[in-house]
Amino acid sequence: MNVLVIGANGQVGKHIVDKLQENDHTPVAMVRDPDQVPYFEERGVKTVLGDLEQDFRHAFYHIDGVIFAAGSGPHTGADKTILIDQEAAIRSMELAQEFGVKRFVMLSTIAADRPEIGPQALKHYLYAKGRADQYLRSTNLSYTIVRPGGLIDEEGTGKVYAAEHISSMDTIPREDVASAIVHALTADHLVGKSFDVISGDQPIEQL
Amino acid sequence: MNVLVIGANGQVGKHIVDKLQENDHTPVAMVRDPDQVPYFEERGVKTVLGDLEQDFRHAFYHIDGVIFAAGSGPHTGADKTILIDQEAAIRSMELAQEFGVKRFVMLSTIAADRPEIGPQALKHYLYAKGRADQYLRSTNLSYTIVRPGGLIDEEGTGKVYAAEHISSMDTIPREDVASAIVHALTADHLVGKSFDVISGDQPIEQL
Repeated sequence: MNVLVIGANGQVGKHIVDKLQENDHTPVAMVRDPDQVPYFEERGVKTVLGDLEQDFRHAFYHIDGVIFAAGSGPHTGADKTILIDQEAAIRSMELAQEFGVKRFVMLSTIAADRPEIGPQALKHYLYAKGRADQYLRSTNLSYTIVRPGGLIDEEGTGKVYAAEHISSMDTIPREDVASAIVHALTADHLVGKSFDVISGDQPIEQL
Repeated sequence: MNVLVIGANGQVGKHIVDKLQENDHTPVAMVRDPDQVPYFEERGVKTVLGDLEQDFRHAFYHIDGVIFAAGSGPHTGADKTILIDQEAAIRSMELAQEFGVKRFVMLSTIAADRPEIGPQALKHYLYAKGRADQYLRSTNLSYTIVRPGGLIDEEGTGKVYAAEHISSMDTIPREDVASAIVHALTADHLVGKSFDVISGDQPIEQL
């Protein structure tokens, strides 16, 4: 599958690109800055330049699957939360529909569908992520929404705990999140599903 | 008509309350802060305390029409743009539907349906306002969306220029915006309509 990775240069994005390669997909890393290209070229990964605050429809040609892993992050200005996490995500979904993309996997965040339980400082971020996820559910795309708990940099274990809603705000290695996302890309029984995911004992390939 | 004015203490909100009284409606001013109550009580206007970042469903009992005139404004933190301009607006629409409210008039802003033409510094604000307006269009409410140009404090003239899209970013007195909103509240031919409005030569009552 030719898979456009939006936000490829992010911390989870880079793991996603690796996992796509390991699973015989062809990742296309969308990056904003030409300086970000060599990292991927050196790994034999195709890149496409695209700015999420501009028109990036050119990136969608010959793409079978899209992974949206871009994020302004919860600690940038909230104007970027609207422009990137919410609006660029929705724009990606519109383009994916227009181009007939077969699968769309969203890197969301735990509590995006329950912003009211989140800490006050993150509420606006959770609402914006939640609106994007809600938009995705309203499309005719074959989507999966993955909502990880707190992201940490530890090595992946290949195992997680996934459920529609998880009450703890436990952590999960970014590498395992990437594995779960790449798994979801071809797991037909996960189409139309949204789930929380933290560290646990379930082999990711059995999700 | 019993009309809940959300954001009654704002600069446009106060004019809206006045115009409602002049037109024999019964405004109910929703305000966050008890200190804001006396201003309205002294004018014989009912008030209800409600915080847009909390649950405010109690404000919707015995209400026939809702005017959403609250705004964090384009110059507050963008987290509030999400929480107030987008999310509290959408929550108001959900409650209006739940309570069977007859009319809903939204104070939007010019270019909310065309954020891409807006200045960079306002884009996130325009997108958030636009998402709220888009949500309103998806409801079964009898709504009108009023999108004024630059708001100024001059005395109202009773005349405006209104059109689906206006290319100039001209100004309009807040008092005239309030008059147009209160007019829209009972103008059946404006149900389901969205329009830009700036100063001009059309009598507001003929909109």
